[in-house]
Amino acid sequence: MPLETFSAYSTGRPDAVMQVTDSLCELLARNSNSAFGNREVRIVCVSFHFQVEATDGKARAGRFFTPHGVVETPVFMPVGTLGTVKAVAQDVLEELGVEILLNNTYHLYLRPGVEMVRALGGVQRFMAWDKPILTDSGGFQVFSLSELRKVTKEGVAFRSHLDGSSHMFTPESSIAAQIGLGADIIMAFDECTEHPAERGRARESMEMTLRWLQRSKDYFEAHKEEVPWFGPRGLKSARDVIKSGFNGTAKAVPLQNDAEDASSGGNAGPSTPAAEAAASARDDKSCSVAAGSPSRADFAHDGVETQALFGIVQGGMYPELRRESAERTVEIDLPGYAIGGLSVGEPRPMTYDMVDAAMPHLPENKPRYLMGVGTPEEIVHYVALGVDMMDCVLPTRAARHGLLFTSEGKLTIKNAQFARDEGPIDPKCGCKVCGRYSRAYLRHLYASNELLAQTLNTVHNLAYYLDTMRRVRQSIILGEFATFLSGVRPPHLSVP
Amino acid sequence: MPLETFSAYSTGRPDAVMQVTDSLCELLARNSNSAFGNREVRIVCVSFHFQVEATDGKARAGRFFTPHGVVETPVFMPVGTLGTVKAVAQDVLEELGVEILLNNTYHLYLRPGVEMVRALGGVQRFMAWDKPILTDSGGFQVFSLSELRKVTKEGVAFRSHLDGSSHMFTPESSIAAQIGLGADIIMAFDECTEHPAERGRARESMEMTLRWLQRSKDYFEAHKEEVPWFGPRGLKSARDVIKSGFNGTAKAVPLQNDAEDASSGGNAGPSTPAAEAAASARDDKSCSVAAGSPSRADFAHDGVETQALFGIVQGGMYPELRRESAERTVEIDLPGYAIGGLSVGEPRPMTYDMVDAAMPHLPENKPRYLMGVGTPEEIVHYVALGVDMMDCVLPTRAARHGLLFTSEGKLTIKNAQFARDEGPIDPKCGCKVCGRYSRAYLRHLYASNELLAQTLNTVHNLAYYLDTMRRVRQSIILGEFATFLSGVRPPHLSVP
Repeated sequence: MPLETFSAYSTGRPDAVMQVTDSLCELLARNSNSAFGNREVRIVCVSFHFQVEATDGKARAGRFFTPHGVVETPVFMPVGTLGTVKAVAQDVLEELGVEILLNNTYHLYLRPGVEMVRALGGVQRFMAWDKPILTDSGGFQVFSLSELRKVTKEGVAFRSHLDGSSHMFTPESSIAAQIGLGADIIMAFDECTEHPAERGRARESMEMTLRWLQRSKDYFEAHKEEVPWFGPRGLKSARDVIKSGFNGTAKAVPLQNDAEDASSGGNAGPSTPAAEAAASARDDKSCSVAAGSPSRADFAHDGVETQALFGIVQGGMYPELRRESAERTVEIDLPGYAIGGLSVGEPRPMTYDMVDAAMPHLPENKPRYLMGVGTPEEIVHYVALGVDMMDCVLPTRAARHGLLFTSEGKLTIKNAQFARDEGPIDPKCGCKVCGRYSRAYLRHLYASNELLAQTLNTVHNLAYYLDTMRRVRQSIILGEFATFLSGVRPPHLSVP
Repeated sequence: MPLETFSAYSTGRPDAVMQVTDSLCELLARNSNSAFGNREVRIVCVSFHFQVEATDGKARAGRFFTPHGVVETPVFMPVGTLGTVKAVAQDVLEELGVEILLNNTYHLYLRPGVEMVRALGGVQRFMAWDKPILTDSGGFQVFSLSELRKVTKEGVAFRSHLDGSSHMFTPESSIAAQIGLGADIIMAFDECTEHPAERGRARESMEMTLRWLQRSKDYFEAHKEEVPWFGPRGLKSARDVIKSGFNGTAKAVPLQNDAEDASSGGNAGPSTPAAEAAASARDDKSCSVAAGSPSRADFAHDGVETQALFGIVQGGMYPELRRESAERTVEIDLPGYAIGGLSVGEPRPMTYDMVDAAMPHLPENKPRYLMGVGTPEEIVHYVALGVDMMDCVLPTRAARHGLLFTSEGKLTIKNAQFARDEGPIDPKCGCKVCGRYSRAYLRHLYASNELLAQTLNTVHNLAYYLDTMRRVRQSIILGEFATFLSGVRPPHLSVP
């Protein structure tokens, strides 16, 4: 990443003050001399920052910065429902290059419970995954999994799919749960409009989602300091900087509120150097840096970090409602926006139209997250519409049923044709499964109901999805995305 | 390993000729100058070689060499029934330091079938595991798993536990299956005497096993060239030697039959340099080494490699039968000996007595393999009796049921006491599971029936067993085994 790109975020005091996330701060520290030359730059942490680095048509390549690290976009986020991407260990996810994954609030709320996860430090520490995590609001799972669901303007009463016990999600309780779980990105509580739905019903549902969004944001703003890891996260980074040989001194500076993402940044931290020093001493989080030749870049860690709340666009299958929902959601001003209520049984071309209807009304400087999609072909086409983030259980769930995605199409590993096939799942795939195991062995494992089948199949499918996104990103950066896209079957021909 | 220890195997022509396995040959090549000084040593590959490196009381530390690599003893061999150690990928087994694993002939015979595995190159290539593998004879599984078992002097007729289909294992068909599967070490077909058994019944069964052993060996000697990977395996090693910078020239020399393990070494290969050169050209397996300064150590790869057949001592729970079985099994002359028919429901002190009864009658220069044991405490005590090899499903099966072995005893991970426990499974364990995950997370995974629970639990239990064996081995080498042993509860107090 060319560090010069960050100069756009300088604000001119003393030479510049940059509001960046902790992970970006660390990166800058490692490269301070080349980045800043003789300018004096002070850096303040914020919770979330997104930047577009290249566009090609509507498609964008960028990255966002969170308290737990950086994510390159467009990104496909594997689903780790209960705090685990089923059958895959966290170190393998790291090897695959997973930069962010999704947990389901509904599932973790029921088991092991929000207070348990909070007591254990939040989802990242709970599952020993020190990278970004996103939680959904629970709205979709209540919609799709629970029994006896009853929606009122207050929220949704439901019974657990596990034991039938009674529960209630409201915008407030969903956000409270997500603050307790402590993901880096959390989602407003919405109503996933059923399909089909009449226009009047779709509008009512959209209005409810908008009211719930405001309640979600209000609750979040009032309680965002309650995230388990709230506060300056500078210590670890500062130590890493020391280890990596950075020479400089850290100074405390007041948090500046003049950068674009201030609305999502915390501003509840200590507001003076003295207060910051006191807080640092209390938390053992002071930012002292080893003695050495002074640098022109100083690093302040008094910016506090918390979660980023995204809103969700609804509107059923009505383009004008999707547009209205997008516009009114954006008015509420959030660091990112999702499109929900799709992939709920409608035909694929309709999904595509709904995304297309909402997209022009979402701001260019915020990430756009299309929830719950799709096939390997579809996710490429959604990027072509301007989508930056996607998630789906398809690669992982299909893997557990022996359905593998390859550069030559889908492959059902249990088929007899693979019994003596010594080739890899996909000759063009560089994943560790394709590098080591034959189709014959994988078929044997699957036919024998061996646990390893589920692990290896999942690793391959995730590798295929992540590699697809990496190639998409690269083609956007090179200005070759249109060519890339032309080689991918249109989504309406690739219904799963 | 001090290379000087190999001088004991020199035979004096030209300066020395050593019969070693391919993997040892490679090791010697890497260290030829320091190993041999000015002596001219020629090295010939054999299929199996065992050497004791240190003893402490009856306990031995050693290593054996097979066509697929070296194994340090005492060794605990994880069980990979169907060509997979359940829930653990092969690269993770490598990380754990697994040097040899076990496959079950009965299971692979039924699924995917011996001919399938043979066609795919044998078990090592089939499961992408290029290290030693041992197969059992199927006798124990027929004894414990199959329905409608009928034993005659010819063999055992049984029905598959999968589909009820009829099959027959004889000494000949068991060895044929094991040759087709292609493990490095294979086991004679025996009858596992049931417990309890009258003395007369135990003697009859022992006599049957001895007759079946002779038939097993006869069949093996006549068919050992049929192993899927039969022949010189020098090419890969020679290339590795070149890469590692060894300077020398390779010469073909006739296979010598005067070393102690000649009975288990192949002698069906080309017998003259010219024939060897022709064979090498045919197989692209010539051993030419890059130009460089000549060395005093030359490496010949005309020794062919095949499997090693072990015999099994039976005799029920009668010490004098165990002694007689051991003596008469040794008379048949094999590269290694196992003790079978134990851990079949008898009390632990009786198991211990039976091992003790057989052990003095097994030769010191061959490995001793106690089949199907045991707990972490027991395996240490069996080493104290002189056992070199063990296998058991306990660490892997227990892991899948949430039972974890630790330096502080057994731990049932589903217990509520661990729900908020942020500590590792075992504070003294260095495995990657203990290094990353909390008991609280592992309990959550287990309680939620997540696949990852089975993987992580198994990795930890295997690490605990393997680490125990490494510490046992080290204590023997240091002459501190008695002290080590005194810290381990005696086996009769640790019934699983």
